[in-house]
Amino acid sequence: MAFDFQGIATQFVTHYYTTFDSDRKGLAGLYRENSMLTFESSQSLGAANIAEKLVGLPFQKVQHQHDTVDAQPTATGGIVILVTGKLVVDDSPNPLTFSQAFQLCQDPQGQWFVFNDIFKLIYG
Amino acid sequence: MAFDFQGIATQFVTHYYTTFDSDRKGLAGLYRENSMLTFESSQSLGAANIAEKLVGLPFQKVQHQHDTVDAQPTATGGIVILVTGKLVVDDSPNPLTFSQAFQLCQDPQGQWFVFNDIFKLIYG
Repeated sequence: MAFDFQGIATQFVTHYYTTFDSDRKGLAGLYRENSMLTFESSQSLGAANIAEKLVGLPFQKVQHQHDTVDAQPTATGGIVILVTGKLVVDDSPNPLTFSQAFQLCQDPQGQWFVFNDIFKLIYG
Repeated sequence: MAFDFQGIATQFVTHYYTTFDSDRKGLAGLYRENSMLTFESSQSLGAANIAEKLVGLPFQKVQHQHDTVDAQPTATGGIVILVTGKLVVDDSPNPLTFSQAFQLCQDPQGQWFVFNDIFKLIYG
């Protein structure tokens, strides 16, 4: 547990939602060929398909607020993250509650990328 | 993606919450020496500490209901799971909403155990 997994996780999460809310197609760079996304139980495999899925979501504007970010190191040098938060789409007055789990891995150049990504809206 | 990660995840989650709700100390067997639990941002390391934490939670009765279970295989033969659901403690009339992320790994005998476990209550 020597490396600063919580710091890396917090930095990643901030970057992820800032990119999501300002330039969704920029998210492609955070995934790799064998990355997986499960978005509301719909599955996408690989950076290109994942970016297509995220860019194609049926809203123009979105704003994420992450309330909690908890991280743990994995047995193989990755980081598992659980985020809870709220998001607002377009001009809806009602924020939606979400939960999202990531596993980050490092590529041979030492850059962190998303290997696993599971997103879920939570209904009261 | 050849193995039935979704089936294993669903079976694990059912077993986990059934054990949690009926015999909390039985959860110890699902963790190993280097397993991690982050429970409402409080961290425990290792099966013994994790079981102590879970057994010591300040309620007598608890009932979990898992509403969604989404799973993905990891790059190293594990399974990442995101659960969302509700729980009722003691005789409270108000269910609490929770979200929980697991990473399951296999031991040399092929038995699945929890390596990463992050639990979070979600407040509307």
